[in-house]
Amino acid sequence: MSSTAIPHAAGQDHVWSVTEHLEDILATVRPLDPIELHLLDAQGCVLVEDIAVPLSLPPFDNSSMDGYAVRTVDVSGAGEEFPAVLTVIGDVAAGQAQQPTVGPGQAARIMTGAPVPPGADAVVPVEWTDGGLGGGPVSGMRAHSQAPEGASGEVRVYRPADKGAHVRAQGSDVRAGDRALQAGTVLGPPQISLLAAVGRSAVRVRPRPRVVILSTGSELVQPGADLRPGQIYDSNSFSLTAAARDAGALAYRVGAVSDDADTLRATIEDQLIRADLLVTTGGVSVGAYDVVKEALSTIGDPADPGDPAVGSGIEFRKLAMQPGKPQGFGTIGPEHTPLLALPGNPVSSYVSFELFVRPAIRALRGLPDVHRPTVSATLRADRPLTSPAGRRQFLRGAYDPDTGTVAPVGGAGSHLVAALAHADALIAVPEDTVSVAPGTKVETILLG
Amino acid sequence: MSSTAIPHAAGQDHVWSVTEHLEDILATVRPLDPIELHLLDAQGCVLVEDIAVPLSLPPFDNSSMDGYAVRTVDVSGAGEEFPAVLTVIGDVAAGQAQQPTVGPGQAARIMTGAPVPPGADAVVPVEWTDGGLGGGPVSGMRAHSQAPEGASGEVRVYRPADKGAHVRAQGSDVRAGDRALQAGTVLGPPQISLLAAVGRSAVRVRPRPRVVILSTGSELVQPGADLRPGQIYDSNSFSLTAAARDAGALAYRVGAVSDDADTLRATIEDQLIRADLLVTTGGVSVGAYDVVKEALSTIGDPADPGDPAVGSGIEFRKLAMQPGKPQGFGTIGPEHTPLLALPGNPVSSYVSFELFVRPAIRALRGLPDVHRPTVSATLRADRPLTSPAGRRQFLRGAYDPDTGTVAPVGGAGSHLVAALAHADALIAVPEDTVSVAPGTKVETILLG
Repeated sequence: MSSTAIPHAAGQDHVWSVTEHLEDILATVRPLDPIELHLLDAQGCVLVEDIAVPLSLPPFDNSSMDGYAVRTVDVSGAGEEFPAVLTVIGDVAAGQAQQPTVGPGQAARIMTGAPVPPGADAVVPVEWTDGGLGGGPVSGMRAHSQAPEGASGEVRVYRPADKGAHVRAQGSDVRAGDRALQAGTVLGPPQISLLAAVGRSAVRVRPRPRVVILSTGSELVQPGADLRPGQIYDSNSFSLTAAARDAGALAYRVGAVSDDADTLRATIEDQLIRADLLVTTGGVSVGAYDVVKEALSTIGDPADPGDPAVGSGIEFRKLAMQPGKPQGFGTIGPEHTPLLALPGNPVSSYVSFELFVRPAIRALRGLPDVHRPTVSATLRADRPLTSPAGRRQFLRGAYDPDTGTVAPVGGAGSHLVAALAHADALIAVPEDTVSVAPGTKVETILLG
Repeated sequence: MSSTAIPHAAGQDHVWSVTEHLEDILATVRPLDPIELHLLDAQGCVLVEDIAVPLSLPPFDNSSMDGYAVRTVDVSGAGEEFPAVLTVIGDVAAGQAQQPTVGPGQAARIMTGAPVPPGADAVVPVEWTDGGLGGGPVSGMRAHSQAPEGASGEVRVYRPADKGAHVRAQGSDVRAGDRALQAGTVLGPPQISLLAAVGRSAVRVRPRPRVVILSTGSELVQPGADLRPGQIYDSNSFSLTAAARDAGALAYRVGAVSDDADTLRATIEDQLIRADLLVTTGGVSVGAYDVVKEALSTIGDPADPGDPAVGSGIEFRKLAMQPGKPQGFGTIGPEHTPLLALPGNPVSSYVSFELFVRPAIRALRGLPDVHRPTVSATLRADRPLTSPAGRRQFLRGAYDPDTGTVAPVGGAGSHLVAALAHADALIAVPEDTVSVAPGTKVETILLG
């Protein structure tokens, strides 16, 4: 539909369901191409390669205790009364490349994580020994820098040890060739830990999408400035930038653009270079100053093949939903960048973001599950909820997980931004339902 | 306890319970002082002021539809057959300061969000009119830039309207003087939306804590480099930096410091300037090269009042837990910066982070609830879990919310970093329990 068309009610456009619109978006938005990122830059990203373990973990037999590396035969009869007395031939600290060989009657003092030296087949914890001090069992070692003599002399061992005691065997965590992580894994702290442990400093992942948020409207003033008559503060560019970050995007806020089609078109073309996804708010309805519709209805128009801002074009639709009836979607620019044009009312734009933009961002990230969790909750209210026939209504709600109930917050008005700030859920009322009695189960989208 | 003490088993130190250690940390760590932050920089932060609404929302009566502002008496008898015919006196667009006055028999074409002009007491949607075209009901307006004549001429209205129809009354969302948000609120997208809507560009919040993560160990090599014998990759500085970010901190990773007390002390003193919290890993056990213990046991020593690195000092403790027995905690430096010294094993340090550092970060943020959610889940396993007497054991688990069951992942060994990467929960086995049969309820900490 071009901006100059004057559709009459008789030739009413198709009204899209919420599901149809979302399916169209998800069929269009492809996961971003993977790139190689440093480990900490890849946090929260989806891995696109299977990670094979290049070396066994641990890479060598090492001690799990601070103590003495011994030959088990030398301590087999040891007890409190008749300790085994061994000659300490030196220290084995973590990170030490050269180890002494432990011969019969000998022990090496060994630290947690240090390689078990040749000859030894077990470790006895320092607490099972006199620590070389001759005064009965000790609870620790003196620092080498303060007492270097601890690396020599004799040690009394008061308990026997089994072969392999207090030794972490090479490969007991993972073995070289094992698959450490599978493509598709989201990289959280434990996965980053494993990648670092197997020596990976960088991995191939889908990057965070760059999302540009543009609000439009000549009535909009930036917060902090003074309002003149007829003006309101721009809140959408702030709330949607915050919401895009919450959804895992790198979000760029572009302050309000006035209702002038050329300015808007130029701004969008400028922003295309840093956008994997563009989101506009406002100017999508049926008014005479709906600039987004005016500016974007002809972008990607095949009648203008010289236009650099080509793409499939943006289609403006009426959706069977409340709030959020007018919506635009399509692709623009040489890279066919997806653009979602949301209505301008703050609550409508936020609900639209939750329903359509957040899934699009998660699809760009390559996440398998793009939806918020939903629960079936019992409606807690004084009177029935009313909902328009033929439209899916989304009401702000407060969910109580302990009782499994949800209560509406504020009314149905799409401008109730104060109510939204005290809600943690959206109550979805189906298209064919016009009234919901208290106590009825309702689909509840958890925003937490 | 100083680094030169050689405690004998007879004079064993107090063994701290997990709860005691955590309580000590939370009694010491105070919420950060609030600062004024720009709205988007305050995302995720805790508000420390009550926000009063300085102006009513909406600030003026405005139209909720694209249509015509009318006097209801002029359209009271309107119908499809006998429409009311009104003279269009001009457009009222959003953001327009001057409005025409609507007299008897007149209408002003009005856009969504535009102020209702004087004289008018309702709005009729454009779909209830002929849009000035004389051809029956329309579904929208032509863009003003394409068809300026729409702002004049005559319009046929096919339906009556009640007083106030399609008008959002001034103050119907919030009224000047209302409390928009309460101190203590965490600022997510909807709260940021409300703050922007009431004109706030900056707010007083507790900032994100700056957390410095330092790993220690001469055996540690940075991922991507080659390992020599006896060496392993540094994974703790990566996993804990990622985990600190996840907990809402600004995290700074300091790569591995070798096991030299002077180097470590100098590094920590350098880092103090940018730290609200310091976290070290490794070097806290009873070995002869436990550099963190050696370097920090004397920091804050009252015997050295000239030491700039004063604070309460760091106390090294044995905890009744597995993994994670050796822990250090205290404050250092002129600002009495809290420092948590975690064990060096990757799984021990990660579990210690979850139990002690994450709550400390959330306490610095001023969040009321510092703990992960826990559930009572049914143990799903082939054989009983074993656990050491007198120690609270934390096993890696996979939680299934559908069945309410949790299954152990990997074994009890504290070095099983591969298992950790496939877990989403920790199973906590109490101190006095040595065996847990399959089917038993177990306390499960959800890491998601």
